[in-house]
Amino acid sequence: MNRRMVLNTIGHIAVTESALMLLPLFISLLYGEKAVWSFAVSASVALVLGLLLRFFSKPSTRVIYAKEGFAIVAFAWLLMSLLGALPFYLSGSIPSFVDAIFETVSGFTTTGASVLTEIESLPKGILFWRSFTHWVGGMGVLVFVMALVPNVADRSMNIMRAEMPGPTVGKLLPKARDTAKILYIIYVVMTLVEIILLLFGGMSLFESVVHAFGTAGTGGFGIKNDSIASYSAYLQWIITVFMLLFSVNFNLYYLLLTKKFKSVLKSTELLFFGGFVLISVIVISVNVYSIYGTLSDTLRHTSFQVSSIVSTTGYATVDFNQWPELSKSIILLLMVVGGCAGSTAGGLKVSRVIILLKSIYREIKRLLHPRSVRTVNMELKRVDEQTLNGVYSYFAIYIVIIIGLYVIISIESVFDMQTNLSAVLACFNNVGPGLGAVGPTSNYAVYSDFSKIVLSLAMLLGRLEIFPLLLGLNPLMWKKK
Amino acid sequence: MNRRMVLNTIGHIAVTESALMLLPLFISLLYGEKAVWSFAVSASVALVLGLLLRFFSKPSTRVIYAKEGFAIVAFAWLLMSLLGALPFYLSGSIPSFVDAIFETVSGFTTTGASVLTEIESLPKGILFWRSFTHWVGGMGVLVFVMALVPNVADRSMNIMRAEMPGPTVGKLLPKARDTAKILYIIYVVMTLVEIILLLFGGMSLFESVVHAFGTAGTGGFGIKNDSIASYSAYLQWIITVFMLLFSVNFNLYYLLLTKKFKSVLKSTELLFFGGFVLISVIVISVNVYSIYGTLSDTLRHTSFQVSSIVSTTGYATVDFNQWPELSKSIILLLMVVGGCAGSTAGGLKVSRVIILLKSIYREIKRLLHPRSVRTVNMELKRVDEQTLNGVYSYFAIYIVIIIGLYVIISIESVFDMQTNLSAVLACFNNVGPGLGAVGPTSNYAVYSDFSKIVLSLAMLLGRLEIFPLLLGLNPLMWKKK
Repeated sequence: MNRRMVLNTIGHIAVTESALMLLPLFISLLYGEKAVWSFAVSASVALVLGLLLRFFSKPSTRVIYAKEGFAIVAFAWLLMSLLGALPFYLSGSIPSFVDAIFETVSGFTTTGASVLTEIESLPKGILFWRSFTHWVGGMGVLVFVMALVPNVADRSMNIMRAEMPGPTVGKLLPKARDTAKILYIIYVVMTLVEIILLLFGGMSLFESVVHAFGTAGTGGFGIKNDSIASYSAYLQWIITVFMLLFSVNFNLYYLLLTKKFKSVLKSTELLFFGGFVLISVIVISVNVYSIYGTLSDTLRHTSFQVSSIVSTTGYATVDFNQWPELSKSIILLLMVVGGCAGSTAGGLKVSRVIILLKSIYREIKRLLHPRSVRTVNMELKRVDEQTLNGVYSYFAIYIVIIIGLYVIISIESVFDMQTNLSAVLACFNNVGPGLGAVGPTSNYAVYSDFSKIVLSLAMLLGRLEIFPLLLGLNPLMWKKK
Repeated sequence: MNRRMVLNTIGHIAVTESALMLLPLFISLLYGEKAVWSFAVSASVALVLGLLLRFFSKPSTRVIYAKEGFAIVAFAWLLMSLLGALPFYLSGSIPSFVDAIFETVSGFTTTGASVLTEIESLPKGILFWRSFTHWVGGMGVLVFVMALVPNVADRSMNIMRAEMPGPTVGKLLPKARDTAKILYIIYVVMTLVEIILLLFGGMSLFESVVHAFGTAGTGGFGIKNDSIASYSAYLQWIITVFMLLFSVNFNLYYLLLTKKFKSVLKSTELLFFGGFVLISVIVISVNVYSIYGTLSDTLRHTSFQVSSIVSTTGYATVDFNQWPELSKSIILLLMVVGGCAGSTAGGLKVSRVIILLKSIYREIKRLLHPRSVRTVNMELKRVDEQTLNGVYSYFAIYIVIIIGLYVIISIESVFDMQTNLSAVLACFNNVGPGLGAVGPTSNYAVYSDFSKIVLSLAMLLGRLEIFPLLLGLNPLMWKKK
């Protein structure tokens, strides 16, 4: 293990985070809030720590293998969460440090699960930082650093592979750095477009920015206690559309930019995702029509909630915890599937689901014709057996972890199965709100510190797709070779 | 598709079932019950139908391919369930025909989920038939026919493979027929030993036989409303031990008979299964100790319930629905894992769980050392990639079906997630009792006819391990070649 390289890169992360904190600091200054000091202190701590790490770990070699990639990502995300929690804690907005950690992890992992019962009275700077963590975490902090800082690491594909979601990482361009840049440009432009459209709908600049951050990262932190319920139908539809747009594979936007329209229209993942969303909206609409009375209200609320959950954002316009069991079961299904690979959304990812379904079909064919050899195809290309094995193993460990977390969370014994299981699914898939006591109108303050730490780990495991965290934090890997 | 061969074999099944009904008929005669007529009529119907099927479908060739194997198993199990429901319906014991079908499917699939709220007043013949279906269904009806009827089919391994549980079917002897015979001999002897041990504990002959049937098939139908709660500690321990014995791979008993003791002790599946049971007993004991007060009571109840659930039997001595959430979450985990392959138990099967865990380990190794080639081993032998792919696909479709059934059952909207999800898990894994409104002291009478039919299909899907039913009932497969 190239420890120096790992520590050095983490140093870069701390310095970057320090710089990122200047934005909320500026907001707090603008609104004349006392919270400005908490940002100043936090940014200084991050800066000093980052510089020290970089000074004392000048790497002799810049080579990064898979091992180092996992370790960098795992430790970077832990450090980011610890430093990111400082402003919440120091400003007194979140008096408990465990709560502050939970909220920050929830932010960076774009989960959007909150422990705050009252958010409207919080300082603007704090609210901005809370939503900004979504935006930063959505595309990946290390991807961000790679795009900005020159020569952080050679062979940095190993970092990108560890931080980006999905079974395969599409290299848009030969260099990981260039790919990272393009992804961030698309990300920034789409966010700006959403901000402008929200401004048109009558939101203030501040509101537009924070909600665009929450949508872009598919996070879900808002600034009102009732999430998006009190905004106009126009604003709700804009957010609905952008939640879906940010959960589509970003490679498709690159294809659009390079005018490969046919490839986009033929994308299996896009078609499946669209069909899945459409069917869910229809079934739930039929199921809840009697609650809302009119077709336009029903479609608006159903589309919003379905998009919010499948994109793993977690914004709400109505309390889906009050919906009938059928709709609730579809909500849970949407949580598990999640968005497309290569997007900011969480969940199992649509491409994995397609590969799993196709492998079931292959097995059926094989049972009927044992001697035939069949391959699984995706996006018109053959999926090689190693990627297939990767998807199978990921699915297996994904289910094992859900069951394991559910058993651990059940130790509390205060809540029923619906609350505990949906809390695990909502945190692990980076959705945010669950059902029962952690439904859209409730929050995670009800859980003990122990459960909050477990659920924070669940969020990190979900965001980093399990293996980087599992391997990066494994002490066995830290021995020098 | 060799339709004649399929119909002919199903004819054999109907005749066999008619013969099997003579046993409860005899019991009813012995006790002077009116139910004797319902058995006489049912047996006659089965006999006539079977003979007609055999007469009108003399097969020109006896060859059975995978296709025919699936179709035979699927249609045999449906026919068996329909005919088996007749005595319940005709005797008036179960006035609704859908209920009678549910109870019979539950019997043959060794689930043990009941729609009967009061069973102690039922005729002895009916109670006997109810438990006897467990015993017949446990090892497989077609396996039974193969062992008894000469020359039913050549290449009958394709039937056995479709009816026997587990990722691979161990051919103990070169001929499927001989393997079937040995398995049935082991099964009969172990059942007899249990009957004798239960007699020693003071049970009447009738009670001993029906409870041994319920244990051997890992079914769970009893003859008392409180299941096994009112029997002595000795009897409860005997049943505990035999529930575990019947959920061990029967190949191990064959190895014991042929004095290959070392192979038995080195069995990964046995060790894993034992360890899993032991840890579950310990954790639940700590969790529920305060309820029972003494160590011996705690251990007895915990061991009984853990063995009952992991073996997918479903007998109960206490109401585990009253246990704390942690214990209930472990109960659900035990339901999913189930017993060993090649036993009468249901669930995902221990060997599949081991293969999945090992494949996760392999993936971790591969992520660290991408160029290395690794294999998954089981019982000291390499698992070939085709079997691995089979296990992965099975796991994927297993989870997909659980989610699908849960969504369908949620249409009712009367019960909460705990009831609906545990009902699906308990039926699909052939356990029997679930949690909430379908807990050990409740039953499935609360569900609508629609849900009962869905859950009956779930039981059949679980017992036949999905693919035979899915493929055998597929009309596309019925076209002549």
